[in-house]
Amino acid sequence: MHPKIDMHSHIMPERLPDWADKFGYDGFIHLVHHKPGFARMMQGEKFFREIASNCWEPGLRIREYDTHGTQVQVVCTIPVLFSYWAKPADGLDISMFLNDHLAEICSLYPRHYIGLATVPMQDTDLAIQELERCKKLGLPGIQIGSNINNKNLSEPEFMPIYEACESLGLAIMVHPWNMMGKGDMEKYWLPWLVGMPAETSRAACSMIFSGVFEKYPRLRVCFSHAGGSFLPTIGRIAHGYECRPDLVAVDNPVHPRSYLGKFWVDSITHDPLLLEYVLKLQGSKRVCLGSDYPFPLGDLDIGKFIEEMDLPSNVKEDIFVNATLEWLDLKAEDFFESKHEERSDRKSIAQQSER
Amino acid sequence: MHPKIDMHSHIMPERLPDWADKFGYDGFIHLVHHKPGFARMMQGEKFFREIASNCWEPGLRIREYDTHGTQVQVVCTIPVLFSYWAKPADGLDISMFLNDHLAEICSLYPRHYIGLATVPMQDTDLAIQELERCKKLGLPGIQIGSNINNKNLSEPEFMPIYEACESLGLAIMVHPWNMMGKGDMEKYWLPWLVGMPAETSRAACSMIFSGVFEKYPRLRVCFSHAGGSFLPTIGRIAHGYECRPDLVAVDNPVHPRSYLGKFWVDSITHDPLLLEYVLKLQGSKRVCLGSDYPFPLGDLDIGKFIEEMDLPSNVKEDIFVNATLEWLDLKAEDFFESKHEERSDRKSIAQQSER
Repeated sequence: MHPKIDMHSHIMPERLPDWADKFGYDGFIHLVHHKPGFARMMQGEKFFREIASNCWEPGLRIREYDTHGTQVQVVCTIPVLFSYWAKPADGLDISMFLNDHLAEICSLYPRHYIGLATVPMQDTDLAIQELERCKKLGLPGIQIGSNINNKNLSEPEFMPIYEACESLGLAIMVHPWNMMGKGDMEKYWLPWLVGMPAETSRAACSMIFSGVFEKYPRLRVCFSHAGGSFLPTIGRIAHGYECRPDLVAVDNPVHPRSYLGKFWVDSITHDPLLLEYVLKLQGSKRVCLGSDYPFPLGDLDIGKFIEEMDLPSNVKEDIFVNATLEWLDLKAEDFFESKHEERSDRKSIAQQSER
Repeated sequence: MHPKIDMHSHIMPERLPDWADKFGYDGFIHLVHHKPGFARMMQGEKFFREIASNCWEPGLRIREYDTHGTQVQVVCTIPVLFSYWAKPADGLDISMFLNDHLAEICSLYPRHYIGLATVPMQDTDLAIQELERCKKLGLPGIQIGSNINNKNLSEPEFMPIYEACESLGLAIMVHPWNMMGKGDMEKYWLPWLVGMPAETSRAACSMIFSGVFEKYPRLRVCFSHAGGSFLPTIGRIAHGYECRPDLVAVDNPVHPRSYLGKFWVDSITHDPLLLEYVLKLQGSKRVCLGSDYPFPLGDLDIGKFIEEMDLPSNVKEDIFVNATLEWLDLKAEDFFESKHEERSDRKSIAQQSER
């Protein structure tokens, strides 16, 4: 099996502060540990999702992902914790709490975790302030939502944040959330199955057409879930740009196809045929192994379908390791030892007991 | 060049009644013929779209699509004319007006036009009443929206309509409209570039997961724009069905992948690579040449990119002719003569003067 870095996974602290009490208003996520090994995420009084201890126990996670031949996991918060809707100072407080937790895990397991911060996107100045702090904490990037309280990523207020990421050398992962149409299609899980891929396309279009990649050419951006519906609908999007430049090319004259292979996407397609299509558009250096671990909609076999695909070994190595290292501007030697050392390291982790 | 049927195009009458005046409330589409050969579609006082005379002149259209080697065009109304929001009786009145116009064109040019009706989906009984009338008018199918006033195509109230279509032998084309997220992403034409593909996936998921194809196995349904984002995200959708049947498989236990190649899609991808992917999933007998003529976002070269693809001749013949004939349950000999006759017929049409 190839060595692997899984660049798309979610983690959270086992205990959260009582933010509603602290800030004096409701709507924040809190956890109810209702039975051993499980907790209910509650949004105020509303049940959001049941999670298991692999959502918060770093050692347990390492043992789980080791069984799939993964050595390193990139971790970030669960989008519902972004709290972009909160008052800016409170959003900053929450971000700092979550980022300190990420940094702590990374310092405890430096060869097994890489953290992507969250920042209060609802306030440009506070977001940049937290970006600078996260850089010092050693986090190599941030995760942002596909929209910020329904504002698109093309809005001028987000440009200084991209600029700061570029100058600090921080990568960006764009994750779908706050899905369009959610209220009208709750049945059959459609916000997750239909809304999320659309959200990622909305985000990619917004960044491309507003000229983010022209303004900040060294910015390294990765779109989740293989770019959602963006790459499969690039024909339609490009044709829209060509036939109605008066509507589409109003802020950036560059053809959208010229950005293919410049940004990164993850591999979460659940489908070898679509991954082949994505590889043809992006090239293997711009497709990163991702899983969405530990959530059920993720690729919880962590790239098994890619192992089974008839792809050249160097293409798999790009997907499993190189694309992510280049996206995050990190070095292989910081995570991978020689074969012998790696094996003994993995064995000791697998035997390690939970705190 | 192969003979061709273009099964996705839009047409409307040159003159519309003053529905606002007739029904006593506003919001209906009317046309302002502001200069020769062009008209403004107005929604009340709001400008919707400028259209040209190829939106309403059947002879001009025939000459235009003949230059692309197309002999037959399937025509239906422009979704903004669905008027599902109107009072049911008024919706029926509008549908009857539009369907009479479609039937008239088809009877004037029986070898060049096939019409898909519109029905007042806001009222099940009236919709079925109009379905029965359209059957008598000789229209072989209907076009419906991807949602009906934000209700999904999974709603029980639509089942009798599907049942009537099945028993009358009428085909259905599902067209995106009333796009999710529209209000939050007007810039860069995103409702058309991002919202429309999502809408079609929403519609396909809603019909599949509510068991429409199990209940009405002889129902022939075609999803526009190559199924929107549905086919490219089938991996995610199928995985959602597998991992959370409690959310997804609540009304239909059948795996969503088993419907691939059962419904039809059109070819409007603007991209040979995506069309190859679609053909692998659907098979060539379930992919129909479509253009979205006469609108700029359409494939106005009408299948030129498919002619240029390295596909076996029988695959192209399926896409250009056979898939559509099977979808609409029509016979080739009703449209295509022997080579000699066909050529002289085309010549006479090309020479025919506009009424």
